[in-house]
Amino acid sequence: MLTLYDCSTAPSPRRARMTLAEKGIAHETVEIDLRKGEQMSESYRKINPGCTVPALQTEDGHVMTENAEILAYLEAEYPDTPLTGTTPMEKAAIAKWNWKMEMEGLLAIAEALRNASPAMKDRALPGPRNYVQIPELAERGQKKIAAFFEDLDARLQTSEYVAGDSYSVADITATIVVDFAKWVKAAPKEDQTALLAWHKRMQERPSYSL
Amino acid sequence: MLTLYDCSTAPSPRRARMTLAEKGIAHETVEIDLRKGEQMSESYRKINPGCTVPALQTEDGHVMTENAEILAYLEAEYPDTPLTGTTPMEKAAIAKWNWKMEMEGLLAIAEALRNASPAMKDRALPGPRNYVQIPELAERGQKKIAAFFEDLDARLQTSEYVAGDSYSVADITATIVVDFAKWVKAAPKEDQTALLAWHKRMQERPSYSL
Repeated sequence: MLTLYDCSTAPSPRRARMTLAEKGIAHETVEIDLRKGEQMSESYRKINPGCTVPALQTEDGHVMTENAEILAYLEAEYPDTPLTGTTPMEKAAIAKWNWKMEMEGLLAIAEALRNASPAMKDRALPGPRNYVQIPELAERGQKKIAAFFEDLDARLQTSEYVAGDSYSVADITATIVVDFAKWVKAAPKEDQTALLAWHKRMQERPSYSL
Repeated sequence: MLTLYDCSTAPSPRRARMTLAEKGIAHETVEIDLRKGEQMSESYRKINPGCTVPALQTEDGHVMTENAEILAYLEAEYPDTPLTGTTPMEKAAIAKWNWKMEMEGLLAIAEALRNASPAMKDRALPGPRNYVQIPELAERGQKKIAAFFEDLDARLQTSEYVAGDSYSVADITATIVVDFAKWVKAAPKEDQTALLAWHKRMQERPSYSL
C-alpha cells in the first residue's frame, strides 16, 4: 500500500492528499508536524533527506517528493478517475490551467509569505540553501494574488471548472490557492461571485475537508 | 498541418520547436520577430491575443500558447517518441526533473534578466500587467542560477540524462536553461565537467541547432 507523509495544516501536502482522495486510492498516512519541526528528525530524513512534505512512498520503498512527480505517477499507475484529462485537447487545457494556478497563484502566495513572515527570515525560498527576504517581493506577491483572483473570477464566469467542463487537478491547485491566500490575509473580493460560487462547490466535495 | 508561431532567437518558443523536432512532427513555421515587436501587430493579435510566442495552431484553428499545454497536447496526439516517459516511474521522474528545470533554472534566469535589463523597466513579469523591477531579485536570480548549475552537475555525475537513462523533455528544458543563462552572463563553471559533457552531447542532437 502507498504511504503518504503528510502535514494536515500545510498547503503543499494537501495537493497530494486531495489527489489521492479524488482518485479514491487507498493509502496509509503518517503525519509529520511541521510546526514541531518533525520534518527535520533523523527518522524522517531517512524517508526524505530533503526534509519536505509531501512524500509518497510505494510499497517497494520508492519515495516521491514533488507534487508534479506524485501526480504523474498516480495518473499513470491509477488511470481511473483521470485528473489530467483524457483527450489530447483536455490534457492540453488542464496542463495550461494547472501551470497558471501554480505560477500565478501558489508562487505569488509563497512570495508574499516567505518574504514577509518573521519566522522565515533567511528562508525566503524552500530548499537546502538560505536566501534573505526581499520585502518588495512580498508586496509584489500581494499584487499578483489580487490579479490572480481577478483573472480566475473572469475565467469561472464562462467555465464551470478551472480547466473546462470537468473537475481536474487545476481545481485542486486553485482550491489550495484560495485557502492558502488566507495565510497572507488575501481573499477573493465580494463581487468576484463566479470565483466564490466555484469555491463553495469545491467545499462540498468530500476531498475538501480531508 | 500544425503551425508554430516561433521566434528563432527566444528561449520560450525554442522549447516548443525542440519538442516538435525531437518527436519528428511535420509543421509549418511562422517567424514572429520579437525584436521588431511583431508580436504586438494586429495580425498576430488575431492568432494570440496574449501577444506571446510560442503559439501552436492546429489545422482546425485551435491555438495553444503555454509550453505546458503544447507539450501535453503533442505527447497525447503524437505518442511516438515519448518525451514524458512510458512507465509510471519514468513519467514521475521526468515530471519531477522538468519541474526543477523550470522552477530552479528558467525562473531564476527570468528573474535575473527581467529585474535588471533596462529594456524591461516596468516589465519585470510577463503578461498584460506591468510590474516594476526589483534589483535584489535580479541578484538573487544570479545566486539561484549558480546553485542550479551546481545541483545539475551533481545530478549528471550519476545520470546520463537529466531525468534518468533516456532523453526527455527535462533535457530540452535544461538545454535551454544553459543557453539562456548567457543572456545574464551566467555559465557552468569549468570544473562542472558532467554538466559540460552533457551539454556537448545535447549540441550534437539535430534538434539543438534548429
